[in-house]
Amino acid sequence: MIWPGVISYFSQYLPVTDKTPALTLQEGNTPLIRSYHLEKKLNLGALFFKFEGMNPTGSFKDRGMVMAVAKAKEEGRSVVMCASTGNTSASAAAYAKRAGISCIVLVPEGKIALGKLSQALMHGARVLALEGNFDQALAIVRFITANYPVALVNSINPYRIEGQKTASFEVVEWLEGEAPDCLALPVGNAGNITAYWKGFKQWYQLGKIKSLPRMLGFQAALSAPLVLGRPVENPQTVATAIRIGNPASWQGAVEAKNESEGLIESVTDEEILAAQRLLSEEEGIFVEPASAASVAGVIKKSQAGYFLGKEKVVCVLTGHGLKDPDIAIKEIGGKIERVSASRKEIVKHLGLEEKV
Amino acid sequence: MIWPGVISYFSQYLPVTDKTPALTLQEGNTPLIRSYHLEKKLNLGALFFKFEGMNPTGSFKDRGMVMAVAKAKEEGRSVVMCASTGNTSASAAAYAKRAGISCIVLVPEGKIALGKLSQALMHGARVLALEGNFDQALAIVRFITANYPVALVNSINPYRIEGQKTASFEVVEWLEGEAPDCLALPVGNAGNITAYWKGFKQWYQLGKIKSLPRMLGFQAALSAPLVLGRPVENPQTVATAIRIGNPASWQGAVEAKNESEGLIESVTDEEILAAQRLLSEEEGIFVEPASAASVAGVIKKSQAGYFLGKEKVVCVLTGHGLKDPDIAIKEIGGKIERVSASRKEIVKHLGLEEKV
Repeated sequence: MIWPGVISYFSQYLPVTDKTPALTLQEGNTPLIRSYHLEKKLNLGALFFKFEGMNPTGSFKDRGMVMAVAKAKEEGRSVVMCASTGNTSASAAAYAKRAGISCIVLVPEGKIALGKLSQALMHGARVLALEGNFDQALAIVRFITANYPVALVNSINPYRIEGQKTASFEVVEWLEGEAPDCLALPVGNAGNITAYWKGFKQWYQLGKIKSLPRMLGFQAALSAPLVLGRPVENPQTVATAIRIGNPASWQGAVEAKNESEGLIESVTDEEILAAQRLLSEEEGIFVEPASAASVAGVIKKSQAGYFLGKEKVVCVLTGHGLKDPDIAIKEIGGKIERVSASRKEIVKHLGLEEKV
Repeated sequence: MIWPGVISYFSQYLPVTDKTPALTLQEGNTPLIRSYHLEKKLNLGALFFKFEGMNPTGSFKDRGMVMAVAKAKEEGRSVVMCASTGNTSASAAAYAKRAGISCIVLVPEGKIALGKLSQALMHGARVLALEGNFDQALAIVRFITANYPVALVNSINPYRIEGQKTASFEVVEWLEGEAPDCLALPVGNAGNITAYWKGFKQWYQLGKIKSLPRMLGFQAALSAPLVLGRPVENPQTVATAIRIGNPASWQGAVEAKNESEGLIESVTDEEILAAQRLLSEEEGIFVEPASAASVAGVIKKSQAGYFLGKEKVVCVLTGHGLKDPDIAIKEIGGKIERVSASRKEIVKHLGLEEKV
């Protein structure tokens, strides 16, 4: 199937003009993978995983970034800049280079996963490692882009949200014109929950769907400003992609929750890592820790009796597990069994002798 | 767009029965990304990248593995096994777990990229690290699967080739019913070149395409048995995925080359890494080193005057760069610039003062 990328495929719903460059890495068109195992355990009507790790740079960020970089190019900008916990920088660097412009990324030092850092570097971005956290990095990027000829491509750039909302259109297309009952997703800087809700509302207003989903947002317990109702100064979590104490799209997240009669709650790092393992060991889908927050949240709510048993639920899996292999290696690298190149020894090691 | 996965979408061209389980992670349906920059430099009619890194486990292996595991399940097997330089093990582990069966992988110790190892572990495979190379590992797996109740899922399993050939069908669909003039791809164990050629021939025989492409295979210079015409005992290359001295599909590769009037040649590690950088810095596509062998080869042949200037060329990019971030970090990690959380300092560091 020919897929022209999100700007081209969804152009009638996006702020595209005749002068918007036809930028694409064929992002979007990610699948809804049906749950084989967890759906039954949780007694849901249907459970799907929207696996955004199958985007070109391995995360959902590509949807909004292609839009933001295309518009920056349209407006004649030659440099883009962002603060990032990793995925945004990977995507910004890739699309900037594809568009033939420069990219500067500001990342919190030591708090960004290896895979993501390698992407920003390989895509030729200028990478500044800040002695500080994401929120400080974003404040600096806001200042610089407001005062110098550098285009901001964080999700406070409205084109980012516009591009990202295409994921909700794809969910509806996959479900043959229906919205799910619930859409669960991790919440960090809150651009994604804002974007999904905007997309669903847009298609509802256009009459393309007859109902709206409840938005279920999940934050990491020690990085949960939206649950606490106030910024967190030193956010902590193994899920580096949502390690954010003062979400830029705070208002959008609260509106999505309230308008959809949904919720924003927290899950612990232990629950996140358990959900990550469950997804990889039972469903065959390897995601980065932050992505597993949506699944951890759905498990938690299911155990608390939130679902009636017939809901159609979509969990957004925001990024690929290859983005952050360190945690996997740290957790279970010790399980590798070393063997010599001997048939006999390996047969014995595997306990196969008696099985002939 | 709803994509049912390769077994379902291409079932009429595959050895599928009523009893074959509907296994899928929505693999396949990967895009042909048009070159923005290299196509012009090389003066080609059109240059596309078939980016197989956008498969669920990040490599082309998912196509053949879904078929092999589905057939193993259909045949009542409860354990699958493979030797692997990494991508095969990641894919085998993911599909085995999704199918609810066990997986054992045998990898050459110390010669497998970090990301790939993390995948096999996370997907709950039993990982044996062999004191030896890939060819030794494959010999042991052949022995064990021939003598014990364990299903072999290396590419000598014919179902692997059957599943993998679907990539050539997708190339044709993307090109609106035409085969490209040339299809370039990396060659390691040679299953992929065998599979693509099988797919193109099948659709040619069915009248679905009117011409066949020339198959251009590229091996790493110090792992080039098909170029030398004899096995290489200690294959070396930075492109770990094609670090293979005695390809299992030797005959298939030679047939693909001869029947298509193509070629199998070698590229150096330096040429591979240069092509990898070019892809990430100019096209915005980050691939693992092995994948870049196809692009390095096309650049080399272009410089040697092989192309006439109007050819439609497809380069297969077999795996995502996130599979092997270490090389990127080693090569360019030193470029990260450390800065303190001061607006003034960063403005100065970026040389922005004079630009107000």
